[in-house]
Formats: sequence, C-alpha cells, structure tokens
Amino acid sequence: MSETRTRSHWAWGWEDKMPDVDARQNLGQMMGAMLGFTPAGLKDAVALNAIETNGSRVQAPSALQDFCTDDVESRIRHAKGRSYEDLITGFYGDFKACPDLVATPRNEAEVTATLDWADENKLAVVPFGGGSTVVGGVSADIKGYDGVISLDMSGLNQILEVDDVSRAARIQAGIFGPELEDGLRKHGLTLRHFPQSFEFSTLGGWLVTRSGGHFATVRTHIDEFVESIRTVTPVGVMESRRLPASGAGPSPDRLMLGSEGILGVVTEAWMRVQPRPTHRSQASFLFKDYADAVNATRDMAQSGLDPANCRLLDKREAMLNQVVFDGSHVLIIGFESTDGPRHAWMEQAQAICESHGATCPAGITHRDDSTATGDAAGKWRNAFFDGPYLQSALVTMGVIADTFETACTWSNFDSFHAGVISSMRSAMKEICGGGFISCRFTHVYPDGPAPYYTYIAPTSFGSELSQWRELKAAAMEAVVGQGGTITHHHSVGRIHRPGYDQQRPDLFAQMLRSAKATVDPNSILNPGILIDTA
Amino acid sequence: MSETRTRSHWAWGWEDKMPDVDARQNLGQMMGAMLGFTPAGLKDAVALNAIETNGSRVQAPSALQDFCTDDVESRIRHAKGRSYEDLITGFYGDFKACPDLVATPRNEAEVTATLDWADENKLAVVPFGGGSTVVGGVSADIKGYDGVISLDMSGLNQILEVDDVSRAARIQAGIFGPELEDGLRKHGLTLRHFPQSFEFSTLGGWLVTRSGGHFATVRTHIDEFVESIRTVTPVGVMESRRLPASGAGPSPDRLMLGSEGILGVVTEAWMRVQPRPTHRSQASFLFKDYADAVNATRDMAQSGLDPANCRLLDKREAMLNQVVFDGSHVLIIGFESTDGPRHAWMEQAQAICESHGATCPAGITHRDDSTATGDAAGKWRNAFFDGPYLQSALVTMGVIADTFETACTWSNFDSFHAGVISSMRSAMKEICGGGFISCRFTHVYPDGPAPYYTYIAPTSFGSELSQWRELKAAAMEAVVGQGGTITHHHSVGRIHRPGYDQQRPDLFAQMLRSAKATVDPNSILNPGILIDTA
Repeated sequence: MSETRTRSHWAWGWEDKMPDVDARQNLGQMMGAMLGFTPAGLKDAVALNAIETNGSRVQAPSALQDFCTDDVESRIRHAKGRSYEDLITGFYGDFKACPDLVATPRNEAEVTATLDWADENKLAVVPFGGGSTVVGGVSADIKGYDGVISLDMSGLNQILEVDDVSRAARIQAGIFGPELEDGLRKHGLTLRHFPQSFEFSTLGGWLVTRSGGHFATVRTHIDEFVESIRTVTPVGVMESRRLPASGAGPSPDRLMLGSEGILGVVTEAWMRVQPRPTHRSQASFLFKDYADAVNATRDMAQSGLDPANCRLLDKREAMLNQVVFDGSHVLIIGFESTDGPRHAWMEQAQAICESHGATCPAGITHRDDSTATGDAAGKWRNAFFDGPYLQSALVTMGVIADTFETACTWSNFDSFHAGVISSMRSAMKEICGGGFISCRFTHVYPDGPAPYYTYIAPTSFGSELSQWRELKAAAMEAVVGQGGTITHHHSVGRIHRPGYDQQRPDLFAQMLRSAKATVDPNSILNPGILIDTA
Repeated sequence: MSETRTRSHWAWGWEDKMPDVDARQNLGQMMGAMLGFTPAGLKDAVALNAIETNGSRVQAPSALQDFCTDDVESRIRHAKGRSYEDLITGFYGDFKACPDLVATPRNEAEVTATLDWADENKLAVVPFGGGSTVVGGVSADIKGYDGVISLDMSGLNQILEVDDVSRAARIQAGIFGPELEDGLRKHGLTLRHFPQSFEFSTLGGWLVTRSGGHFATVRTHIDEFVESIRTVTPVGVMESRRLPASGAGPSPDRLMLGSEGILGVVTEAWMRVQPRPTHRSQASFLFKDYADAVNATRDMAQSGLDPANCRLLDKREAMLNQVVFDGSHVLIIGFESTDGPRHAWMEQAQAICESHGATCPAGITHRDDSTATGDAAGKWRNAFFDGPYLQSALVTMGVIADTFETACTWSNFDSFHAGVISSMRSAMKEICGGGFISCRFTHVYPDGPAPYYTYIAPTSFGSELSQWRELKAAAMEAVVGQGGTITHHHSVGRIHRPGYDQQRPDLFAQMLRSAKATVDPNSILNPGILIDTA
C-alpha cells in the first residue's frame, strides 16, 4: 500500500491524506464554533517543482555513488522534519538549506563507508529515519562544514532474527513502524510501540529520541524494550551484549538512548517483543471536576494496577478530539494481556474512579482478540493518529496549531498546570489576539504525570513563524521554568535546545561532550544537537 | 538497637550473630549429611587487636581534622568489603593495605572539602557506604598514589524531605537500610528495597552498584526508584532535575547508576517511595521436573502479571535453605498491593504453574497487613538474610562457600545453565576434590532470568584463597563466555573486572574514561574500578 502513495514534501504524512478544500472549509467553520475564531483564509503550499534550493557542494566518491544522490527532490525531502517551523517554511517553499547529498546505505558496511568518507572530508552527517521529528532533529541547516550529508537509514529495514522463546527480535534501525509490525505479525508477535508518528518513523529514530509509545505506565518509553543496541561511530562499531538485564557498570544502552545521532548511527537492536494481546478491558470514566479527575489518575498511577492505557483528557481535549462534548474530563483506562482476562484489574480501576465521583456511561467493555473498540477509546485513537494531518491543514488556513509535552511531579502539577495554561493564554492573547489550549496526560508515573498540551491560535499569512517562535519560547519558559522537563518524548533537537540547556546538569553536558569527542573526534555527527562541540 | 552492637572486623554483619562453636559443629554435621563432605576443622579469626598494618602516610589538614581519623581500628574497618577474598584475608588478619585516613564527613561541604584536598595532593578516594561489597568495590589496596582515603558516607544519613503526594523522598546517601525504613515508616512509607545486604549497606551504595532488590519483576534494580541524583565530583556538583520521567537526551542518572564511585560521590537522591502493602497473596509451587519449573517461571515472567516475588529455587537450593527436602523445585510467587486484593492475579499465576504440572501443597495465602508468612516464603526469607553469616561461619571451618549471579536470555538458559553447572562441578572436583552447586532465580524478565548460583566446596586451612581464585575464574569464564552478564546486581568492583572487560563494549569503556577525565581529571576517585585510567 505505502509503495504507491506519495509523502508530502512539506506537510505531515501522505499527500492524499491532506484534507481537501471542502474539508478544510468545514474544519474552519467547526473551529469558529468550537474555538471562537475563524481561520485567516486558505492558501496552497508552494509546489515541489517550484522550489529553489542551493546547489550541491559535494560529489560522492565512486565507491559510494551507488547509494548516494544529489537529486534535488531527494535533497528537498531530506532537508527538514515536521516541526511547526518545518511546516511553515516548507509550506512557503523555503528549502534554502538542503543537504548536499542523500546517502541511503543498504547495509552496515555502507553506513561505515559513508561515515569514513565524511570524517575525512569535514562533512556533517545527519542521520535520517522517517523525518518525522517535531523538534528539528534532522535539520540540514548546518554551518561550518564543507557539506552536509543526510544519511537515510531506510535501506536497513529488515527483521534479521526472531527468538520467540525469549520474545525478542533483532531488527535493523531503518525499518518503519508498519513494516516492523507486519514483519513481526508473521511470527505472531508485536513490538507494541505506537507513537503518533508510527507510520512515518523508524526503530532507530525511536531509540535515539527515547520515543514514548503505547503503554501509559511502566513501559512508557522505547527504552524499556531494548535488549541491546548496535551503533556505527566514526571510530568503529559499538555493540552491547544481548541481556535481559545487567548491573555491570552504567548501562551502555542508556547512553545511546536519547543520543539523537550525535554519538553514532544505530544500525540494529535486539528488541523485546510480545504476542498480540488476546484480552482487553477498556472504559472511559467521566469527571465533572478536573481536580477529581487528576486525583483519580494519580491514585491509578500509584495503585500498582499498571494499566496499559491511562490517558486523561481535559474537557477541551475531549471536545477537540470529539470524544465527549458535555464538558466532562475523560480518563480512558485500558488493560490488555496475552494470557488471562483483566476483569479484576478493571474492577479495581473502576472503584478508584468512582471514589472520585466518576461516571462510566458507556460501561466497561471486555473483549477477546479485537482491535475495534467503538467507544471513546476508539474515537480517541483515530483522532490521535489524524492529529498531525489537521495541524498541516491549519497551516494552509492561517492558523497556528502546535503541541508541547513534559513531565512533572504530582505535588507540583496543580500550580505547574495553572502556570502553563495562564502563560500560554496570555501569550496567545498578546501575540495572536486569542487562542485555545487543552491538555491530556499521555503517560503517568507513581510520582507524576506527563501532561501534553495542544494550543491553537489565529494568525495571518506571513506572520506565522515569528508569532509561533514567541509562543514556543513562552511554552519552553513555562515548562522548564516551573520545574518540568523540556520533553517527555518529543526529544530535544534544535528547537528544544534552550530549554534542554537549562534543564540538564552542566557537568553531564561536559561528560557527554567528552564522550562524543571520543567516538566522533571531528564532530561530524548531527552537529548542534544536545551539545555544542565547536 | 544497632548502636549497642559491634560489627565484626572481618566477617559478615554483627559479631554476636556469628554462630558459636556448638552451632558451627552442628552445621558441620548437617553439611556432611547434606553435601557429602565434612569441614576441615574449626579455627578462630585473628583478633582485631593482634592485626598489624601499615602506618598512615597522610595527615589531615586542620580544616578536615574534625571528621578525619588515622586511628588503626577505624582504618582496619575500612580496608575491605565482604567478598570471599576479603573474608579470608580478614580471617587471617591480613590488613596490609589499610586506608591512610578515614574521613567521615557530616555534610556535603565536608565531602567537597575532602575531595578538594585529595585532588590537590594526589590521594586516592574510596567512597565507602556500608562496606558490604562482595566484589572488592571498596578496597583500599591502591598503588600509585601518595595516600588512600576511605570516604565513609555514614554521616550523611538523614531523610531530608518527604513528598507524600508524589510519593517521593529526598534522602542522604549514607543512610543504612534499617535507618531509612525506620525514617520512612514515620510517614507511612517504605522504599521496599531489600537486598541481602539491607542491614549493612546504604542508599548511596545501592545507587552506584545498581543494587537488585525486593521486586522480582519490572522494578528489579534500585534504578527504577530514582527520581534524581546529586553527586559531588572533584570539579563540582552535579544534580539532575527531579522528574518522574524525561526524554531529554541520554539520562544523566543512568550514567551515575552503576558508576561505582569513579565519577563522583553521590550525596543525596530523590527516591520513589510507597506505602507498605496492605494486601499480599503468596504461594509456593512445587515441581518434580526442573524443565517444567523453568517453563512455568518463563510463562510467569511473560504473562504481564508482574508478581512482586517470583523466585525459583532448584531442588538443591530448596534443600540448602530448608524450604523443602523432597527433591522438589520450588517457585515462590507473591503479589502485594497497597489498594486492592490480588486474588485474581494469584489465580492466574496458579493456572500457569498447574499447566506445567506444579502442586501447591501448602495452599495459597491471602493476607492483610501482615509481614509473617509461615510458609516456604517465610522460611526462604529468613534463610536469605542469614546466608552471609553462614558463609562467614564456613570460612572458620575450612569450607569454601560463595555465590555468583548473572542474567541471560530464556532461549540460552538451558545450555547456559548446564554449562555453568558442569564447569563448576568439574572445577570443584579438580581443585577441591568435590563440591555442591545450587541455583535460584532472584529476578526474572520477559526475555530471561537472573540465575544466582551458590557453591560450596571443601578446602584446607591455608589453601582457601588460591583455590577460590581458581573457582572464581572458572565461574567468570562460564558466565561471561556463554553470553551472560558478569553481574546482575553484585556490581563489578575489582573482582569482576576481567569479566566486565570482556562484556562491555570497548567504545563504551573509552567514553566512560573520557567522561571520568572530565569530572575527575586527576583520577582520584576509586581508581582501578570499571576502567583503567593511568
């Protein structure tokens, strides 16, 4: 299926999934009714063939020519990710900083050959998975090098080995979510890692960005599914031993997880996999009062029930995602298992929610081997995967829509949340004349939630980027200034660097710099990400 | 209680808990019956006041004199840990390499002052928690420095702050297990981290060794209970932000966890705590066939039931710990929770065990708020905490007794285990003329178990150390050579260095060396541990 479709050169996902003019006009009307402001209009993006870009400064040596190209379209398609900044500049056809070359190695030896050549020739290398980064993690806009190579990993996309006794699989890093799940399905297995970018992101990308996935508790990040990682660096290959756990020194894998391409290029990993769940229990609990909903969610996170799904939508988020429209806050709870029913788990979850005043009008569903849910959880899931398409559509309508996410402690949450909402409302009012902000918890921990904010504000064509930059700065200040993390699962990239620099200990940044200098002495790997090396 | 008791200067734990002559003679007879060999005899350890040691080469500057001492007894008590090598050398009164000085800072400023002084004077600093390391992690036998300081952290032993909404506490690193639990109990809370060394080890020690604790699944290592860590290094203080989770770059905490004192001295941490469980369900399942028991344990580990206790004792381990004597292998399963019964969990666990042919003669117990168990789990727990005392007693009897532990994948386990058993039996036969080996799983994961081996072999007074060294080398080769980890939760120290060097990726060791050089430019911190720096 995916082979016959074309990815948009600027917007999220498939070209044919961009809402058409009618749909966008309906969206505009709905927004007017729901959010109280109407879009600025409707514009078309600059067409791919009308885009002007820099010429390539670099020619691949003959040994690399088989898998390298300086084709303009390919370079445009590897110039940026899908941050709001990328969307806006892409929409307006601004691709001034394309990579000079796109390398698409077909095996690890070609990855090594690319790094060797780049290392000898002072060329920056930007590892590229699916290009879905929303924080500028694959930007080719890099100064101070004689050229920039986008290293597209999609040629390393095989499941190499499956160990169904240990429930683990050795998988190449360039594999996309759907290919990975298709391949594992043949073995009756799944990774069960479904970030919002699932269709357009790769295993390697998930690993180096500490992607947040399907499970709302305990196994929240891809980190928890890693057995071992294999990485190519400019000075050689590093591979950790395949182990279910170890206590031998600091974890080598945990240094690569979140390294965002600056320490090496992940080529493959042994990942923990599992059979598809055969038992699911799901319910949506409705709360009139947000404090009650938060307290119930905290009790759930601290209960030891460890639900697979535990997502609290505030009333605005519930409305925006068309889950409920009556002003209720919605806590979606799901349990799943491969070997036994989870009725008793759900009964205890229900008791927790009811003790905080929740109702459950649609009731609890217990199902066997079904992916369809039909209730609020299903509506929510569809809205979840379509969200980024709506954001792109709003770009064409002169509306700013973006998200940011974080984590903080429960004791800090009330004032943290009030501070974020009030800062963002003030900022939107001042900068855009108004706006909307909603919140959901994507993941929860015994010691705190991971709140995820969506904001939407009117803008005018041409003003989007400068206004968004002000709003993004306000969001970063609100989140990091109040003790949260700059990102729970979107990673740092270029956009979150100011917040990250404020958050991470200075001595850790210095140690990371030393570690990088050891494996990347000429600083060719994704320069500018996480630390400055010059 | 602990204030009035004296720690043995060479053996495990309290002096008054060393079995007396009668008890040791009984032990010898029991061993003869159970293991088929009798101890060499019965000797007394060299008394503390008969020990000769090196003089101190170092005098503390006046600013540090309040909390530094060169008292001989204090230096002897900080010379070593409780590895088999430490026990034997301690028993024979070999304390040739004592630290020159013992510093017991009372606050973080005094830690900093100690490091500053050591850094300026080329003095090695060995951070010292409870001194319970079984791998030589606190050895003062360090060459190439003008002196060795043992930095005893027991003066920093306060619970500084409790956040009962987020269920977290800020705790100083030098606090011992019992003090920590006593302090948290006042708030109705517990850390629930109970390594075998619980009584004689500290929070800081647990953190830097990635200690394995109470929970047999999911939250197995202390790592999972960390919110943030504060560390003093020779170039300054590093403190991570207090967060339930983050995806911002590689985790700073995960670099400190397992760093074994080479990157800095942990002074405090925010730890996740919880109320004491009010619901417990426990059972011991008996298997005639070991393969059945292993398969049942694997199914349990992969079930998503995530029991708090899931410890498989093979028939020899069950006998040795006086749990059962009929040749059954025993899988001890326990669930606990703070908010709801776990009957349904145990029912599913029982179904798994029964599908593999298990019986449950003592039945399942469901209790509220009780620590006593009365069944095999209780017997097992008592034997667990007394184990190290028996090892010390056997030292006085001319018997080698030691343990080693690892983790491997399920698919590898059968041949791995057979290889370990056969290697160790051969080695014991060749070196000692015979011996006994048993195995339990201390922790389990969906992708593999953490097997823990106990071996006991006859020796003669004077030959223990050379024979043990050969046995230990055989154990390391069996474990690491067959793809396991050199340690699941005992850490690396000096004793596991050969296995660790084989296991960890070279490039990771190089990055660790660079990181250390950044925060410890003169390599004063625990030199020789994890990496060579000279």
